[in-house]
Amino acid sequence: MKVGAKHYRSIWFDQDAGAVKIIDQRWLPHQFIVVELKTRNDFVVAIRDMWVRGAPLIGATAAFGVCARMRSDPSDNSLDETCRVLNDTRPTAVNLRWALDEMRAVLKDLPPAERAAAAHKKALEISAEDVECNRRIGLNGLEIIKQIAARKKPGEAVKILTHCNAGWLATVDWGTATSPIYHAVEAGIAVHVWVDETRPRNQGAQLTAWEMDSSGISHQLIVDNAGGHLMQHGEVDLVIVGTDRTTSRGDVCNKIGTYLKALAASDNNIPFYVALPSPTIDWTLT
Amino acid sequence: MKVGAKHYRSIWFDQDAGAVKIIDQRWLPHQFIVVELKTRNDFVVAIRDMWVRGAPLIGATAAFGVCARMRSDPSDNSLDETCRVLNDTRPTAVNLRWALDEMRAVLKDLPPAERAAAAHKKALEISAEDVECNRRIGLNGLEIIKQIAARKKPGEAVKILTHCNAGWLATVDWGTATSPIYHAVEAGIAVHVWVDETRPRNQGAQLTAWEMDSSGISHQLIVDNAGGHLMQHGEVDLVIVGTDRTTSRGDVCNKIGTYLKALAASDNNIPFYVALPSPTIDWTLT
Repeated sequence: MKVGAKHYRSIWFDQDAGAVKIIDQRWLPHQFIVVELKTRNDFVVAIRDMWVRGAPLIGATAAFGVCARMRSDPSDNSLDETCRVLNDTRPTAVNLRWALDEMRAVLKDLPPAERAAAAHKKALEISAEDVECNRRIGLNGLEIIKQIAARKKPGEAVKILTHCNAGWLATVDWGTATSPIYHAVEAGIAVHVWVDETRPRNQGAQLTAWEMDSSGISHQLIVDNAGGHLMQHGEVDLVIVGTDRTTSRGDVCNKIGTYLKALAASDNNIPFYVALPSPTIDWTLT
Repeated sequence: MKVGAKHYRSIWFDQDAGAVKIIDQRWLPHQFIVVELKTRNDFVVAIRDMWVRGAPLIGATAAFGVCARMRSDPSDNSLDETCRVLNDTRPTAVNLRWALDEMRAVLKDLPPAERAAAAHKKALEISAEDVECNRRIGLNGLEIIKQIAARKKPGEAVKILTHCNAGWLATVDWGTATSPIYHAVEAGIAVHVWVDETRPRNQGAQLTAWEMDSSGISHQLIVDNAGGHLMQHGEVDLVIVGTDRTTSRGDVCNKIGTYLKALAASDNNIPFYVALPSPTIDWTLT
């Protein structure tokens, strides 16, 4: 999405530099720093130490990490070890395992000499697929927001609460929970976003509020305690959050505090949606 | 309660100094600073700028504020103006209005020359009454904790979650929500207290955690988001909070975020208690 006048993704392959670039999210909202990732270890550190975060972005980053290693050592042992090392970087994001399984499925039966090129192609596909997934989440969510807007007075904003960051910084682009918001804004619907601070790591304060600000979307940063009160007073029309992992039955594992907002939404008859792409579903969990 | 080896109240009349002393709570937990309040304006500033806070302590402080003014000007005009000025310092604590009404009822029909002494006596009574109220809240709460402890294995702690600060720093002594905890500890029951950070002003982090630490009570500071998760996983046996104001029907107005914890307690069948002294009930509100 937009940062100032320029469109960014959270991860991309820079043809000129011949390297993968990411936004080092540790410094947001204070500094916007783009870094190159070259070696496998660069990718491990970037995921493990939260330079990148968000389930879909972690998956895409891991895919590019496999590429990096395939260029220096495309052997079977190297492929096995790389997938294992990358998989160990972060326990919660199922997309990480999914992306590594996708990479391995493409690469394992290829001759080593063809793996680097195939890995590059597949990593780009995984990125593109995430963008398209999120765009479609946005189109689905737009319909929901349109219905709410239709019940409002002209110009009155649809008020949406979100917890943590399931924005474009958590994905390759669009975000999951925020994609419907961007689509609504593009469709000319007035929206106002309540951004939960999201203690203890403050992803709402540091990332989601920055995203909203960068795109000029009306928003307000609130402490995590405030959401229930706002819901009781009719100040929330809709809650949309992301998910780290979703079971095959639809149970959602998301940032701590999500449950409290779901209870409050239920108590106040406010629709509560989890925006997720299929790779976030862990089909092995019931 | 204890601070190190010495017993303190949050407000007291120091005979030697001939002045009221308070703990200036703005600097906790980093500095323990006792200050003297002498003029009416000292009391106004102390309440308005949150040197003292907590509904019961605000009431006691206002009562002593009336005394201070009666010593310099015990006229009818002065009494009216003092009650009005003190009442305007803080909007939420109904105990403030209650304490001022109590003071006025005692003073208004007395000759001005007798007002300073009568005000002093009444302010001490209001303080003593608060301490006794809270002691009895503790005895009632102790019975509840005893019942929970009886269902535990020997030595296994009763786990109590509290939000904000309804501890002795919010009252003259004992606290409301914490009084049952102190009584349980004195009765030899193992307890563990989950202390909500309580954003945005962090009263849990700065005051309740400090109180628990000062008395050597097992506790852990948690972000406000965590309580629901702990309840889902059987880590909370009981929730006890205080209240700023309570309607005549029993509806409770307390620090933002209390509602979310009440919903989670309900969803997990965990008993949720509001510990309150009668002056916190606003009989004019239904």
